Amino acid sequence: MAQLLKVQNFTVSADGYGAGEGQGLERPFGHAHPRDLMRWAMATASFPGPRSGEGTCGLDDHLVRGYAHGIGAEIMGRKQVRAAARTVDRPRVAGWWGDEPPFRTPVFVLTHHPRPSFTLGETTFHFVGGSPAEVAEQARAAAGGLDVRLGGGAHSIRAFLDAGLVDELHVAVAPLELGAGSRLWTAPEELDDRYHREVVPSPSGVVHHLLWRR
Amino acid sequence: MAQLLKVQNFTVSADGYGAGEGQGLERPFGHAHPRDLMRWAMATASFPGPRSGEGTCGLDDHLVRGYAHGIGAEIMGRKQVRAAARTVDRPRVAGWWGDEPPFRTPVFVLTHHPRPSFTLGETTFHFVGGSPAEVAEQARAAAGGLDVRLGGGAHSIRAFLDAGLVDELHVAVAPLELGAGSRLWTAPEELDDRYHREVVPSPSGVVHHLLWRR
Repeated sequence: MAQLLKVQNFTVSADGYGAGEGQGLERPFGHAHPRDLMRWAMATASFPGPRSGEGTCGLDDHLVRGYAHGIGAEIMGRKQVRAAARTVDRPRVAGWWGDEPPFRTPVFVLTHHPRPSFTLGETTFHFVGGSPAEVAEQARAAAGGLDVRLGGGAHSIRAFLDAGLVDELHVAVAPLELGAGSRLWTAPEELDDRYHREVVPSPSGVVHHLLWRR
Repeated sequence: MAQLLKVQNFTVSADGYGAGEGQGLERPFGHAHPRDLMRWAMATASFPGPRSGEGTCGLDDHLVRGYAHGIGAEIMGRKQVRAAARTVDRPRVAGWWGDEPPFRTPVFVLTHHPRPSFTLGETTFHFVGGSPAEVAEQARAAAGGLDVRLGGGAHSIRAFLDAGLVDELHVAVAPLELGAGSRLWTAPEELDDRYHREVVPSPSGVVHHLLWRR
């Protein structure tokens, strides 16, 4: 099996935004409320967290289940992880996931300001510059033959898409508009020249777009 | 997470048959052609076999991917495995999968004629009598905390359903009629008193039914 670079369970608004304006540690999705965007995933039995095992086991859940399966490394934009390295000896990090990041693989954080790697729980964060192709190469090498997930945000996914590096995408389109923020696409049809795309509406109200290279 | 007993990727005709009449080693689906029933799964990139990695990566593929994830033991009916134990020293087995069964877990084969267990590749087959509840208990104990898959056929699934032992089912309904054979249901609505059910049509022509306990 080829080693793939994938986007999984990434959620955008109907107008294509992965997050609203004014993103920060307190508001990781900017003016969008995380629950509005992520409601479909949080309602499933497989969504990680204290209520794991409760919830629905339909289409949304089957897609959430695949999240961690076969992934050996993760790439994400700097806004996905908030690192305040006050000293090199005592690096601090905070993300929406708190003290137990759910990744459990090496994570490569895209930044122009490299800083020392650190480990939190079972996840090690590396801060890397360079082109998308260079970062993809680093992540592939660290993934032990498994696939690499590109976690977001929208700007990072777009950069990797534009560089022709993404093999497969699962994007959930939530039934709300954000009007501004970090945008993945104006419309998913933009990618139809390069990707097969299946459109699968879920009873929860989101519409899943499943794309793979032509 | 609770330990679940699941049916995954089980395919039936539009009239509810999992196999046609006259099942045998040469015709594991009886008068039905395996390619007609299983075309949706065989066209996916994740279907195990020599062409694995080629094929579609849409909805059907996302469902096929989950097949082996988190499964610690399998239960199947005797028609799923054809064992001709000519001598105890040289047990022979043949199934549609040839010499490399894709299960890679303990497999519990339902039969009234117990025979010695044997191992083929990474799979060990045990031949067990007893009630569905007793067999489910054996399989759970062997699954190392992981879930148990009930592989089929239709009669076996029905027996476990009737005993209230199945937590979750994914059944793909193929767009053809068989008229006779081993039947799972007259119509999926039969189970609506006991299960939530999502109906998800695939672009391939099959309709996925995803059921979980109420």
